[in-house]
Amino acid sequence: MINYRTYLTEEEIPTHYYNLRADMSKKPAPLLNPATLKPMTAEELEGVFCSELVKQELDDETAFVEIPEEVREYYKTFRPSPLVRAYNLEKALGTPAAIYFKFEGNNTSGSHKLNSAAAQAYYAAKQGLKGVTTETGAGQWGTALSMACAHFGLDLKVFMVKTSYEQKPFRREVMKTYGAEVTASPSETTEVGRKILKEFPGTGGSLGCAISEAVEAAVTRDGYRYVLGSVLNQVLLHQSIIGLEAHKAFEKIGVSPDIIIGCTGGGSNLGGLIAPFMGEKLRGEKDYRIIGAEPASCPSFTRGKYLYDFCDTGKVCPLAKMYTLGNGFMPSPIHAGGLRFHGMSTILSELYDQGMMEAVAYEQTEVFEAAEIFAKAEGILPAPESSHAIKAAMDEALKCKETGEAKNILFGLSGTGFFDLIAYKQYNAGKMTDYIPTDEDLEAGLAFVPPQPVE
Amino acid sequence: MINYRTYLTEEEIPTHYYNLRADMSKKPAPLLNPATLKPMTAEELEGVFCSELVKQELDDETAFVEIPEEVREYYKTFRPSPLVRAYNLEKALGTPAAIYFKFEGNNTSGSHKLNSAAAQAYYAAKQGLKGVTTETGAGQWGTALSMACAHFGLDLKVFMVKTSYEQKPFRREVMKTYGAEVTASPSETTEVGRKILKEFPGTGGSLGCAISEAVEAAVTRDGYRYVLGSVLNQVLLHQSIIGLEAHKAFEKIGVSPDIIIGCTGGGSNLGGLIAPFMGEKLRGEKDYRIIGAEPASCPSFTRGKYLYDFCDTGKVCPLAKMYTLGNGFMPSPIHAGGLRFHGMSTILSELYDQGMMEAVAYEQTEVFEAAEIFAKAEGILPAPESSHAIKAAMDEALKCKETGEAKNILFGLSGTGFFDLIAYKQYNAGKMTDYIPTDEDLEAGLAFVPPQPVE
Repeated sequence: MINYRTYLTEEEIPTHYYNLRADMSKKPAPLLNPATLKPMTAEELEGVFCSELVKQELDDETAFVEIPEEVREYYKTFRPSPLVRAYNLEKALGTPAAIYFKFEGNNTSGSHKLNSAAAQAYYAAKQGLKGVTTETGAGQWGTALSMACAHFGLDLKVFMVKTSYEQKPFRREVMKTYGAEVTASPSETTEVGRKILKEFPGTGGSLGCAISEAVEAAVTRDGYRYVLGSVLNQVLLHQSIIGLEAHKAFEKIGVSPDIIIGCTGGGSNLGGLIAPFMGEKLRGEKDYRIIGAEPASCPSFTRGKYLYDFCDTGKVCPLAKMYTLGNGFMPSPIHAGGLRFHGMSTILSELYDQGMMEAVAYEQTEVFEAAEIFAKAEGILPAPESSHAIKAAMDEALKCKETGEAKNILFGLSGTGFFDLIAYKQYNAGKMTDYIPTDEDLEAGLAFVPPQPVE
Repeated sequence: MINYRTYLTEEEIPTHYYNLRADMSKKPAPLLNPATLKPMTAEELEGVFCSELVKQELDDETAFVEIPEEVREYYKTFRPSPLVRAYNLEKALGTPAAIYFKFEGNNTSGSHKLNSAAAQAYYAAKQGLKGVTTETGAGQWGTALSMACAHFGLDLKVFMVKTSYEQKPFRREVMKTYGAEVTASPSETTEVGRKILKEFPGTGGSLGCAISEAVEAAVTRDGYRYVLGSVLNQVLLHQSIIGLEAHKAFEKIGVSPDIIIGCTGGGSNLGGLIAPFMGEKLRGEKDYRIIGAEPASCPSFTRGKYLYDFCDTGKVCPLAKMYTLGNGFMPSPIHAGGLRFHGMSTILSELYDQGMMEAVAYEQTEVFEAAEIFAKAEGILPAPESSHAIKAAMDEALKCKETGEAKNILFGLSGTGFFDLIAYKQYNAGKMTDYIPTDEDLEAGLAFVPPQPVE
């Protein structure tokens, strides 16, 4: 019998990240400078990002990137993460399928975000920077980054969307405990913040505005750079450690997954989980069904267009070619805050466009229903984001029940729901509602997509 | 080099609990019936508790009690827990000491409480009961029990102290997600609740009152029994799995701890952690320094008296001989809610009286200072309760720094602080205060201790 939990040893923690782009014959489209519509150069990006991270962002060729010794040591304080056989969930569903999940929530940040935060903080410290700036919505990324910055001795300024800052004070306190300076955005501390406050006094802020403030705070300060927790190629590179560990754990137990499922907002979790498996698929060595699970309220893959668009609503970031609902799309206030992003990683977008992966969309009540079944069966209270993957895995397992197939299903349990209990409360009280954008909503979102470059 | 984290394999999870009482030549004093001042019989206890648990409660002789197969299987969903080498904390302190901690917080209940909840729910289900009742303050025990009851298919009625029910809604929602019925106490659902509400309309309730309601709800319902998460001998028996795993992990890495430290309120965590080590000490095979760390605001060991007293302020429970501040003692509203108990496990009380262990008391601001240093160094945000042990371990490590001794220090990290962020917020804002009872406070607490039986 296979163990409930399979751990690698600390010596087996991967020594290199895997860069999926190296195995893509058609590469993801480059970031463009919105003014010139020409590919962003390293020089342009280095004003905002750390040098090593810019290199990683633009490198489509190197397959394996060494994980610095200091980062590997830090990983040992929360990795390797377990590959878990969900025996109790299988029993609850009565499925012949074997369900596995890679659990990334067993660290204080509560999610996989710490994998990239560790690398980004390390490179910033190594470059001799004083600190970094970032934005955060609900706070998963901000929390992870505050932990990593505390470890590598970096100053951190977090711009937290004002409504979250006020309504979700707990992650804010975790960030403060780790020494981060947390500012409600929009704030009086930046020019763009003051401008927005003057124009819209009393606004609750937005992620787009927080990004603009964080970028301004980085570029106007000596020794600071801006860092970001999703969407970017560099982030998917760091997150490949999830998939690499899972791949090695499957080898240890002599199992190969048939279906691999991850939730996806900007793509950091899904892109990391699938990396080595997708690599094998691209190289024609193996075949896997790979599925991204997204919210029906913010359906970038399933209802978006593959276009160049701004990554942020504030339009300060470069253009990225991605499945997008348009930077003007206003996602509904669902509880899976980490999946409320109008676009998608350019790597995943290109792979989806090539037909290398599928996508499904779920409404939030059915996602919480799956979360509750999972919590009772497996003990772990899942994050609403991760519960999209749970729902997709359960659906596939139930299909196996119908057909009698004993497939091996792997899904990514990217995080825990300890900071999402307002959502669970709403669900428990039967007061949760669903939001599906109309075709008009989608048209309105795409209205702000800039003119497309000539290919 | 020793790994950061040492895990046993699932096959190495202990097959038996260890009953420390078997190795005590002078046994802990028996529970007494307050009416007759005679030892409680199994028959008297079985009206309230499950039969198998009564047997365990009264058994001072059997050294090893088999862990039922179903409980061991359930343990595999969250155990073995890691023994962690705190390299980064050692570095932060500049100590030659080696610091280890046994981390019990990596499950959804966030603490070691699940170890005993699992066993208690299993025995209740095996006895064919419909359900169990319990009380909870901040909610660690209630959460753990709701998880275990969901697993073993038992109904659960939790009486949650009203102020906690209203001010700390999050653990309540976790319990509800696991299917527990959570009632604010005092409630209209019990006679004692109605009486208290009539007498004190608008009261916020107390643990004593919640216990009384839970006991009444159990004894007045067919197929229900009452269960408790600390203090009792049976609870320490189940929690011995913490120490047994730690002991085996130390054997694996060829290390022996010199000092063993745990926080202590009712004693479930400390008693479980030290069990096999104390057994060796009692049998004269090995020597360890064993230290209980308690809050200065509720200093049962360091300022209490060794007397027979009621375990609850409602005086519905049997008398236990223990270090007590008196059932009339009103502990200050500190944030380490799990340590706010006027008494102490009878097993630990007897061992302390015999000079087999030491105790230290800390004020909460110095405890949170230690928690913050630990969180930054080791990544994990600790529970305020557990942070008492962190503080004691840091103090011992700093003594080693002075003397140059490279001692091996083990402490129990019994839980995480995800549900204690109001406390961290207060600490971060510099608004935390300390509470030390005056001698008059202690006298007032002891005024309610009943007449002592003649020995």
